[in-house]
Amino acid sequence: MTNEEFRAHAHELVDWMADYLEGVAAYPVKSQVQPGEILARLPALPPEQGEPFDALMTDFKEIILPGITHWQHPSFFAYFPGNSSPPSVLAEMLTATLGAQCMSWVTSPAAAELEERVMQWLRGMIGLPDSWEGVIQDSASTATLCSLLTAREVRSGRGVNARGFDGSERYTVYCSTEAHSSIEKGVGIAGIGRGNLRTVGVDETFAMVPAALERAIVEDKSSGRTPLAVVAALGTTGSTAIDPLEAIAEITSRHGLWLHVDAAFAGTALLLPEHRSLLNGIERADTFVVNPHKWMFTNFDCSAYFVRDTGALIRTFEILPEYLKTAEREPVHNYRDWGIQLGRRFRALKLWFVIRSFGVEGLRERIRRHCAMARELALRISAEPDFEVMAPVPFNTICFRYHPSEPLAEPPSQPRAQRPPPRRAEGPGDTGRLNALNAALLERLNATGRLFLTHTKLNGRMALRLVIGQTAVEQNRRTARALPPLKGLPQEIPAPSIV
Amino acid sequence: MTNEEFRAHAHELVDWMADYLEGVAAYPVKSQVQPGEILARLPALPPEQGEPFDALMTDFKEIILPGITHWQHPSFFAYFPGNSSPPSVLAEMLTATLGAQCMSWVTSPAAAELEERVMQWLRGMIGLPDSWEGVIQDSASTATLCSLLTAREVRSGRGVNARGFDGSERYTVYCSTEAHSSIEKGVGIAGIGRGNLRTVGVDETFAMVPAALERAIVEDKSSGRTPLAVVAALGTTGSTAIDPLEAIAEITSRHGLWLHVDAAFAGTALLLPEHRSLLNGIERADTFVVNPHKWMFTNFDCSAYFVRDTGALIRTFEILPEYLKTAEREPVHNYRDWGIQLGRRFRALKLWFVIRSFGVEGLRERIRRHCAMARELALRISAEPDFEVMAPVPFNTICFRYHPSEPLAEPPSQPRAQRPPPRRAEGPGDTGRLNALNAALLERLNATGRLFLTHTKLNGRMALRLVIGQTAVEQNRRTARALPPLKGLPQEIPAPSIV
Repeated sequence: MTNEEFRAHAHELVDWMADYLEGVAAYPVKSQVQPGEILARLPALPPEQGEPFDALMTDFKEIILPGITHWQHPSFFAYFPGNSSPPSVLAEMLTATLGAQCMSWVTSPAAAELEERVMQWLRGMIGLPDSWEGVIQDSASTATLCSLLTAREVRSGRGVNARGFDGSERYTVYCSTEAHSSIEKGVGIAGIGRGNLRTVGVDETFAMVPAALERAIVEDKSSGRTPLAVVAALGTTGSTAIDPLEAIAEITSRHGLWLHVDAAFAGTALLLPEHRSLLNGIERADTFVVNPHKWMFTNFDCSAYFVRDTGALIRTFEILPEYLKTAEREPVHNYRDWGIQLGRRFRALKLWFVIRSFGVEGLRERIRRHCAMARELALRISAEPDFEVMAPVPFNTICFRYHPSEPLAEPPSQPRAQRPPPRRAEGPGDTGRLNALNAALLERLNATGRLFLTHTKLNGRMALRLVIGQTAVEQNRRTARALPPLKGLPQEIPAPSIV
Repeated sequence: MTNEEFRAHAHELVDWMADYLEGVAAYPVKSQVQPGEILARLPALPPEQGEPFDALMTDFKEIILPGITHWQHPSFFAYFPGNSSPPSVLAEMLTATLGAQCMSWVTSPAAAELEERVMQWLRGMIGLPDSWEGVIQDSASTATLCSLLTAREVRSGRGVNARGFDGSERYTVYCSTEAHSSIEKGVGIAGIGRGNLRTVGVDETFAMVPAALERAIVEDKSSGRTPLAVVAALGTTGSTAIDPLEAIAEITSRHGLWLHVDAAFAGTALLLPEHRSLLNGIERADTFVVNPHKWMFTNFDCSAYFVRDTGALIRTFEILPEYLKTAEREPVHNYRDWGIQLGRRFRALKLWFVIRSFGVEGLRERIRRHCAMARELALRISAEPDFEVMAPVPFNTICFRYHPSEPLAEPPSQPRAQRPPPRRAEGPGDTGRLNALNAALLERLNATGRLFLTHTKLNGRMALRLVIGQTAVEQNRRTARALPPLKGLPQEIPAPSIV
């Protein structure tokens, strides 16, 4: 492909991209293909001779696109969003064109220094201590693994890195029962052993119970274990529950444990001053991760990992073979030593474009609007006699389920405003029945292609999860007008009665 | 930024991108900025209000671009190339626009099934066994770490993952003294201990000596260690030396060790049938990595990791929290279980675009041309009285140094065709002097901005490395005509006399 062909095709592509972003709501959110359908349409052997770009685009549209689940669809409410945004896409176009590596300062000084600057910006924007430093990782899984590895090396005096485990370490790690699976995965990778991850109980808001954490630490100490690290979640994956950071930091300080804060999704809400108090205690934490690629309109991958002690991070990962030695050692940042991978894309550019294009206030407005929409929806769900909200809604994630107040054989028929009598206590049989009912409902909803929800389990009860955080999500004003006025609804989202 | 603004800006950007790729040769290859220069031009605080795109582009051009080292420059001969290409950039534009996740099949079925198919294509293109399966990782560092972790889990019966090291493992890992730093880093991360990485001696071609490997294994066994894994390099980072795979596989089979093949850079040469014999013995290896993002014209990140036993890989990494459970378990591929990260970009698209756009034969032609250019340059260097080639040139990487045959005080003055008398044996003092001289030469060359070389050390001797593998590299025919005809040069690149 010549440069002139590239120019022509790229212009065609831009129109396709703009049309796509404009019309994405017309696609089924969740791809409706069956397993193997796409594979069967892709030839078993690659072409020997080059093909024209038109052939690629035709196949892209006809074969690939039907198999895409549209993460940028305004009605993508599944998982956590993996947001893109126009300025972020523009930056990715430049990043792809430059193809510059950001492993050492010298491999692209601007990539390294822009990363340093935007991490300083982000640190201030979300209220982390000024003395911390940041680095962009690919994912929170990697950031959490880096944190656990750094904890391991700090505690072992860099002994594990140097000599391997000798069996005397007997480390234990702590998180809540609601914490993300990447912690268990990371504890395994780091050689600590998944079985040495203690999952601490949660309260009725699904937040870690500090007293239970301390009990577990004390028990482990008394049985000859070495409690190593705690991972606190600001926004769990299931219901965005908020572990009490200050109380946890008090415990980790007292017992000499490492503290990692996983704010991968909900950390973006720290842009709002009204949420800033969630960070109380952060000065006693060691590391923190938030993913702008989730809720901050920045293309994946862009996971912002902040550390209190940069030296400890670098000492965990640095390695200096001859072919990577450069004249510039200090004070430049050679980010290859700040994590696992050597090769690194120029990822700071898109975050720079996003922050400058939206402006910090523009980001805040959107985040606030998402939280307001979620709150309104949670109120409306809780006012429905046949639905219940299953967990608090501190940000923009609503966990709810269908729980018909009438026997299941009959269709729900009660008028909206009339609350049903309190339900009898839910037995194990009821839970199984309701879980199956909600699984069926989830499947039916997703099969419509009109929205995409996922689920979680809270105290063994299946909950549908609905996350309002898409770049393009808007309240449908026409539908909204057809709904009963919000003032007729309860002002508080009722506490879940079933936890 | 509205969709219409996005459309307009993206069109502007495409023209900038095409102009850039067309004119990249006019930039200094290696950025000439000083440490801190870029940072000082970036404001300390982010803007509260959004800024127009024009302001971003102005700053991109004026502040960022001077700090970019141009990896797509045709005279970028440093490190290994991190190639982009027009079809790959086009694919990245689509990937960024879709912003689709490829962590589970359901999160984008087409992304998962296209990854499956292009990994099958690539497997066949480079001659790996049909029964192996592939997955795209971000980098060879990660792939090698995955391999070491899988070896650890297979050997420990998944005990380390489950319970952590108990001190009885005492694993040792082997690679040559020329192997990549990611192995040492990975051995540390995996908890085996960098000190338990044995670096095996190399022969005069800088390839691992199998007998030395076996001696090290036997010694470790007899001192109560458990030899775990060998990493063989098809193309070391320093000089692209080729470890003898067949002999190594014979040893790992006999002693029951895991065998990982690191062909990150030179694996692309396996596209050429004339290099295919390098893979002899591969059926007894366990894992293999090649980076299309290096020499196969595919944007970073795209590291192709192939494994003989997919089950062993998945059992090392899989984890299934409730919120990731999906109806489709088999036979779909949920690539989140094939590596460390949960979140994964839709990376197969660019490799698909590249293979289809170039065609396999088109890729071969380019790779062949790169190798031919490197061979010609190596011949020309070896014919120069004041330069010497320091290592064999099996692919497209030339290690050489300036070694004036006259005393250093005088400028090199001998006519080109006249070979100098054999040099006297090189003492340690000479080596230090020559290293300093070549370091100065390297710095002076790179400061011109006209090309970018890096260096390595071979037997303690500093060598300049020149890798001819850029997407846009061409032989300058005008310059070539001014050179003495190739037939006047030696037909064989003289064996390095100084190893």
